[in-house]
Amino acid sequence: MRIAVDAMGGDHAPRQVVEGAVAAARRLRFGLTLVGAAREVEREVARAGGGSDTDLRIVDAPDVIEMGDVPIAALRRKPRSSVKVAAELVASGEADGFVTAGNTGAAVMVAHGVFGMLRAVDRPALATTIPTLTGLAVLADSGANLGCRAPHLVQFATMGACYARIAHGIREPRVALLSIGEEATKGSELTREAHQLLKTTRLGFIGNVDAREVYGGTADVIVCDGIIGNVALKVSEGLVEAMEQLLRQEVSRTIGGRLGYLFARRSFRRLRRRLDYSEQGGAPLLGVRGLCIVGHGRSSPKAVRNAVAMAHRLARQDFIAALQQDLESLTVSSAATS
Amino acid sequence: MRIAVDAMGGDHAPRQVVEGAVAAARRLRFGLTLVGAAREVEREVARAGGGSDTDLRIVDAPDVIEMGDVPIAALRRKPRSSVKVAAELVASGEADGFVTAGNTGAAVMVAHGVFGMLRAVDRPALATTIPTLTGLAVLADSGANLGCRAPHLVQFATMGACYARIAHGIREPRVALLSIGEEATKGSELTREAHQLLKTTRLGFIGNVDAREVYGGTADVIVCDGIIGNVALKVSEGLVEAMEQLLRQEVSRTIGGRLGYLFARRSFRRLRRRLDYSEQGGAPLLGVRGLCIVGHGRSSPKAVRNAVAMAHRLARQDFIAALQQDLESLTVSSAATS
Repeated sequence: MRIAVDAMGGDHAPRQVVEGAVAAARRLRFGLTLVGAAREVEREVARAGGGSDTDLRIVDAPDVIEMGDVPIAALRRKPRSSVKVAAELVASGEADGFVTAGNTGAAVMVAHGVFGMLRAVDRPALATTIPTLTGLAVLADSGANLGCRAPHLVQFATMGACYARIAHGIREPRVALLSIGEEATKGSELTREAHQLLKTTRLGFIGNVDAREVYGGTADVIVCDGIIGNVALKVSEGLVEAMEQLLRQEVSRTIGGRLGYLFARRSFRRLRRRLDYSEQGGAPLLGVRGLCIVGHGRSSPKAVRNAVAMAHRLARQDFIAALQQDLESLTVSSAATS
Repeated sequence: MRIAVDAMGGDHAPRQVVEGAVAAARRLRFGLTLVGAAREVEREVARAGGGSDTDLRIVDAPDVIEMGDVPIAALRRKPRSSVKVAAELVASGEADGFVTAGNTGAAVMVAHGVFGMLRAVDRPALATTIPTLTGLAVLADSGANLGCRAPHLVQFATMGACYARIAHGIREPRVALLSIGEEATKGSELTREAHQLLKTTRLGFIGNVDAREVYGGTADVIVCDGIIGNVALKVSEGLVEAMEQLLRQEVSRTIGGRLGYLFARRSFRRLRRRLDYSEQGGAPLLGVRGLCIVGHGRSSPKAVRNAVAMAHRLARQDFIAALQQDLESLTVSSAATS
């Protein structure tokens, strides 16, 4: 078992990426291939104290796609980018999956181009795991597509349900469609059409959920367009950060507040942990014919470690094969409509 | 000065709507017209102890648009609905503005149909005020439209800036475009086109903001498509509720947590108040030729009171005329493209 990691992808690459990846490989004892500017990566490996006790390889890739790059132009201009070389290692069988915390758009294009799509899938979807009041839920698509049609949402639902089964151990995932209002008659044309299609599938479709219910725990898989999913996630992230700052402001205003904060410190820490994106690792890109995990751009070493551990776990469970099997039984194919 | 209130609109109508509206009229001493099933409304007025000390009228409207109704069908089936009669009172000059906490889609259609649009506006936008780390921001559109084009976003920006000036006293509002990523080259076709148009206006356009920055206080007006805006708001609302529950779970697990909560109780209350939608009252529907404030469907008496007080304030400031004036100086007109 071997996982390739795009060592140059992310706001804190290569240092924190290498640190997190080496930590995962050391703990879980799998082969790790770090892809990037070889000298820089070697230096960071030495700093992370890695090498001797891990099965570690470094593959040189001179080009780096920056976070702000326009994917299509950057990929053309930089043919030997670390993210692309990492994907190619998976395609050639030298690795069982790859992880990147870099430019999401570039990762999606690379995975699509290098792996191709699974049968019965037209578009890939990012599946992000979010915490809810009762456990975890999968949000798909959380940002791979900037506009899609109803059959695509059905594909996202099928893949999201498969992922919830395998990654979260939920035997019969409840699948919901994110919409404005819960009524089937409300929402955009896209959600109204997707609602009708989802009803005809054998998925455990429970209907529409309003955006207010995303964290309520009523659904295990929440399906939406990539823009909507991305905004939902990012707004949430920003709000958690803002609330933490506001709470700190408020408690520091009075002695009672400061005292209370001292006493409740451990509770706050547990809450923070439950809401922390880095606990979940990364989001698998569902629908491509190879294992690709996209980490958060701001990934800390812990987030990278969890994302790499997730890749290892999904590779061991032969996730892509399971996904293909689930898709074969997909009732609605969009081949005709896409 | 007289404000009409749709007494039948909202999850807790008519009781809590009447209670809140009467409280506002009593405190601020303006004329109040309650529109709805006359007998029911009279009963609630009596219960709210209103009548004698306020300039109060009741106008009978036998039909009620329910929250789950499909607006276009319901409005056709129910020609004398409370929301429509309330709007007609404004159009005929018998009231200076109206407030509804009912079905948002119906409110938008009614206001559009009864008032017509201001010059140089193609579509109305709901402008919701949200708290940020540094103050308040206006989010427009927060749910009046289910899909719009770039010139519409420019109109929303112009109207949102005018509203921020008048309602929040911000002399030169910083206007931002909500997008995926901050770069002008990122995002959907809609946001890329809107970015280019906004640059050509005399608005204080500061560029794109990522959804993560919505609560950061970097912008005074945040412009987006109605679906995006609605999802951003609803997700936030659900997340605040979920975090409150999670925090309560966490603090109740240990004695330290419970003690801390006791000490910090006032801090939590202040935080809650800062994040509470009902403090902001309602969202004006910008772009129609009449004053319409849409309240939250779950409005409490306090939320209704604040929404009605907001209508009173904007009517006194002759907000609609100010809006029209601002729109006249709009650089980009979409007349040709819409």
